[in-house]
Amino acid sequence: MERILESIEVVLREGGIDRERILSLGVGAPSPLLPEEGILYNASNLGWRDVPLKKILEERTGLSVQLENDANAAAWGEKWFGAGRGFKDLIYTTISTGIGGGIILDNRIYRGSLGSAGEFGHIPVPGGGALCGCGNRGCLETVASGPVLVKKAKILALEKKTLMKELAGEVEKIDGEVILEAARKGDSHALTLYRELGETLGLALAAIATIFNPQSILIGGGVASAGEILFEPLYEVLERRTFSAALEELKLLPAQLGELSGVYGALAVALYPPR
Amino acid sequence: MERILESIEVVLREGGIDRERILSLGVGAPSPLLPEEGILYNASNLGWRDVPLKKILEERTGLSVQLENDANAAAWGEKWFGAGRGFKDLIYTTISTGIGGGIILDNRIYRGSLGSAGEFGHIPVPGGGALCGCGNRGCLETVASGPVLVKKAKILALEKKTLMKELAGEVEKIDGEVILEAARKGDSHALTLYRELGETLGLALAAIATIFNPQSILIGGGVASAGEILFEPLYEVLERRTFSAALEELKLLPAQLGELSGVYGALAVALYPPR
Repeated sequence: MERILESIEVVLREGGIDRERILSLGVGAPSPLLPEEGILYNASNLGWRDVPLKKILEERTGLSVQLENDANAAAWGEKWFGAGRGFKDLIYTTISTGIGGGIILDNRIYRGSLGSAGEFGHIPVPGGGALCGCGNRGCLETVASGPVLVKKAKILALEKKTLMKELAGEVEKIDGEVILEAARKGDSHALTLYRELGETLGLALAAIATIFNPQSILIGGGVASAGEILFEPLYEVLERRTFSAALEELKLLPAQLGELSGVYGALAVALYPPR
Repeated sequence: MERILESIEVVLREGGIDRERILSLGVGAPSPLLPEEGILYNASNLGWRDVPLKKILEERTGLSVQLENDANAAAWGEKWFGAGRGFKDLIYTTISTGIGGGIILDNRIYRGSLGSAGEFGHIPVPGGGALCGCGNRGCLETVASGPVLVKKAKILALEKKTLMKELAGEVEKIDGEVILEAARKGDSHALTLYRELGETLGLALAAIATIFNPQSILIGGGVASAGEILFEPLYEVLERRTFSAALEELKLLPAQLGELSGVYGALAVALYPPR
């Protein structure tokens, strides 16, 4: 909390920003929440439960604060500044350390009853059964995410000769970048890992497309930066497994704001508070 | 089409209903559709494509017509007259010959871009791979529905001694009622079939609950009338596999209008046209 407050002061000071001219502080937070309440129910990656972040920030900074779930903020940012411009229905999903999502229907963010709608990473998938950070077993992000990709690559590199190990020097140093580089150089093991990941994500997105029949699905997050190597198998499964009426006019697009989606998201939340 | 028109005339005549007093004709139709357009895009069970049902009915009857997808109509009916009263978010799902659904968020039916939102029966599930009526393979309703239950029961009865065959007289006569009766009498094969069905549906509903974080999920349709025999394994999987924040205040309820959900739905559509 102190680091958040300090960084706000640093930005104000170094930017020479007059507090009086600040409309609002836009905040994307990694927890289910309801903006009007402003409480982070369960920010598991921070170890926070029921933290009244909006109230704390308002009291300590003297600024007006607009709070939004981080994935919802990113979805809102893409809608106002990125690949989502012009769509009234937009399903945003981010694939990185975990899998998150934001749901915009008829130009409104749909949050659900307690603010946890769009937690696509916790969609249960059959098989797997690994323990998830959320306490359940077999969530989507336990079988398809950045860390899972790296883990699988390391296991592969222990068993087989692969360019991934050569590029990394040793098995322990294999990371996302190494896997991507190896895949781009045509390493069959790295390509297979991306294919499996793409197919799994494609199946999950086919379910989401079938359920929502949305105008558009946007895919962001670090893993998605692999581009065609990931998207090709993903599209293939999505096209085969989505209900035909939902596929007909669906636009599946990479998100445009990259690593800045959260920052643009917080900006969009401050400028155009979502309902 | 002629049978629909004739049945309207029969009801009017036999009921002694004055046409002038009719507010509107409410219609639930088994196809993705957008009510303002009034066109059935693909009523696969009727073999109809792009049929302008609203226009035809209005011209031929001289009445005002409110058209809605049948599952959406049933959801709307439950919201106004059944188990959904008082909920602003309501996911309705019906499990019978196929699996359908209706999505009500913030008191509005969410239809999606081309009216196919809520087609839960066509959520792709891993494994299986059987051809679905929609043209895809491995849709939820190819592994969990009334006909699948009966098919599995028949295969079982060919291989093993079971009460289901005794009750039916011969394998070919096993139907949903026989399976339910056998299960109620404690037949382990019938109970296993319901358990498998309940678990599969529980997993699909856990995904839906995780995605939407809805206030309530209502389960209707002929198969759901089995009651606890189906709901117990269903609840068990749903509780274990739904994201905790989405489970916290979720109400999972049997629909109340039974076989009349469609009729009440059409009534609700005529009285309170959904947006």
